[in-house]
Amino acid sequence: MSGNKPKAVVLLSGGLDSATVLAIAREQGYQTYALSVSYGQRHVAELAAARRVAKRLHAADHRLMEVNLAAVGGSALTDPSIAVPESANAQTASGIPITYVPARNTLFLSLALGWAEVLGAKDLFIGVNAVDYSGYPDCRPEFIRAFETLARLATKAGVEGARFRIHAPLIEASKADIILRGIALGVDFGETVSCYQADVEGRACGRCDSCHLRRSGFANAGLPDPTRYR
Amino acid sequence: MSGNKPKAVVLLSGGLDSATVLAIAREQGYQTYALSVSYGQRHVAELAAARRVAKRLHAADHRLMEVNLAAVGGSALTDPSIAVPESANAQTASGIPITYVPARNTLFLSLALGWAEVLGAKDLFIGVNAVDYSGYPDCRPEFIRAFETLARLATKAGVEGARFRIHAPLIEASKADIILRGIALGVDFGETVSCYQADVEGRACGRCDSCHLRRSGFANAGLPDPTRYR
Repeated sequence: MSGNKPKAVVLLSGGLDSATVLAIAREQGYQTYALSVSYGQRHVAELAAARRVAKRLHAADHRLMEVNLAAVGGSALTDPSIAVPESANAQTASGIPITYVPARNTLFLSLALGWAEVLGAKDLFIGVNAVDYSGYPDCRPEFIRAFETLARLATKAGVEGARFRIHAPLIEASKADIILRGIALGVDFGETVSCYQADVEGRACGRCDSCHLRRSGFANAGLPDPTRYR
Repeated sequence: MSGNKPKAVVLLSGGLDSATVLAIAREQGYQTYALSVSYGQRHVAELAAARRVAKRLHAADHRLMEVNLAAVGGSALTDPSIAVPESANAQTASGIPITYVPARNTLFLSLALGWAEVLGAKDLFIGVNAVDYSGYPDCRPEFIRAFETLARLATKAGVEGARFRIHAPLIEASKADIILRGIALGVDFGETVSCYQADVEGRACGRCDSCHLRRSGFANAGLPDPTRYR
């Protein structure tokens, strides 16, 4: 009975990592509530991918929240005046990729936390990764722990005794590991979209950072790349 | 020269408290960047009020971010199926008002933090109050401190050494104190809207929790209430 399973909110972008996280949450026995966030990014084709992935992996519900981060800009992913980099790992002086979106995972977890409270869920899943994206501050374990502390203090549920847990099961995994784990759990990566500038049908450019990482992940896993390139 | 002043992002709802906070930030020497968040709440008239207040108090910029919290519901302020209470301080069993919006201040501060990073600002102002709204978990000092810790870990700026400060100058103030302070700093409270169910012209119902609090604030301050009631 799915009604007896604990509920978990899973952030689902429609990319490779979050699809695997959804499959992991399901395997761990959670009834999954998938949350996609549209934030004015260029890769809107990911959202259609999220819908396919949520359906295939039997999410109990899938909601879309929209936030116009473009109103403040500041990232190649939200600001039309900043070009998406095609050289592998374009970085700022401090080593942080220019595809970093200011406070993005804080925002995503805030939205997931709000929905978790409404659902009575105490478990949140997020596909952050500290290996391939080591330059993103909000992909580090210390960030995840700080958000758990905040969640307890920020919420009615926390005041009433709930201890929220932020699960980041991929945080130490390589892209190849993630791919192998996802395939074992029934993810169809042909349905996912990782490209920062996919076309409306979800076909990848093959040139951006995200495409480079994804392609080498399949190569390192010794598997054919199911990505549709344009 | 405003160009030499440090920048601060100020969350501005268009209500009485946040208008006072904007005036305080300005008085403290900050160049203010006002951020209003539209989250599917019923009191959209507050946003027009925010525009008037930002203009009168010479904010350097005023942006509007929109988030469809109604997609997950859970509060009398975002869910059309939950009635706005007209008895003073309607509460849930744990003493938290049913106007509590799950994880709202976490979300607001996340959005403010993102804009602060883009601007190069390290100071965020929020009009939370632990006196009149003591039932809201995300209005407590320990929540504010936890968010400061998170902000440092979550951001590129934090990694590069920035220490974000979350200013909550009204956290211990009574409504009457807030009103007196705002008036001293040039706030025109006739321009602000506090009512949870104001009409499109910003006229207040006079019956909801927020109207009760506001009205008694003016009474306790010994001042005429400039609120336009319908």
